[in-house]
Amino acid sequence: MDEPANQQQQAPTPSPQQAPPVQHAPAHHAQHTDQSARTDGNVVYIGKKSVMGYVLAVVTQFNGGAPEIHIKARGKLISRAVDVAEIVRHRFLPEVKLGKIAIKTEEMDSEDGTKTKVSAIEITLER
Amino acid sequence: MDEPANQQQQAPTPSPQQAPPVQHAPAHHAQHTDQSARTDGNVVYIGKKSVMGYVLAVVTQFNGGAPEIHIKARGKLISRAVDVAEIVRHRFLPEVKLGKIAIKTEEMDSEDGTKTKVSAIEITLER
Repeated sequence: MDEPANQQQQAPTPSPQQAPPVQHAPAHHAQHTDQSARTDGNVVYIGKKSVMGYVLAVVTQFNGGAPEIHIKARGKLISRAVDVAEIVRHRFLPEVKLGKIAIKTEEMDSEDGTKTKVSAIEITLER
Repeated sequence: MDEPANQQQQAPTPSPQQAPPVQHAPAHHAQHTDQSARTDGNVVYIGKKSVMGYVLAVVTQFNGGAPEIHIKARGKLISRAVDVAEIVRHRFLPEVKLGKIAIKTEEMDSEDGTKTKVSAIEITLER
């Protein structure tokens, strides 16, 4: 809907580990490629589609018998992942419980070949 | 920096519990009021300031002796909370560990008096 392009500023240094304390790249649209809601085993990757598209993907996988679903997102899309988990739990599948929530830092390749750090989240929902 | 106003669409119904499955409000800028990085006991509320302002607030509280810090954010600012936690851990205080990460749904009052649901996160960092 509202996503123009998806790479962001170049990192000031390509050296990954001893980078100076600049903040993480804004990563406005750091999503995994998706045309339809991408699922992969029991993983739902949050991209630029609407929240309800991912809610549907999660509900469909649970209804297909999946015992747990991992919702993954990066950058600005992390908040959408939380929305998806909350809407699934509160509106559609009240029997589903929150499992582990993990956060980490991933490196992405920028268009100019440098590396950019971006935060990521993985939310596990368990039936 | 880039935040114009902070309330978002009116919810289609003021009835909080049996609302239809509309998605959460976008909550672009659902932040706690902040002029400087707001801290409250061992809580740092993420608002519209830059990420590094909140990183500094967390580091300062740890250096002042706090055993743990709770980073709280709502709506789109959730991704910024994750950035803050990750930057504190990886760049400034490697001895600090991730504690519990909780997500939930909160209700906000919209300007027109209706209620809007918004996702929230609380990330605990422990020395």
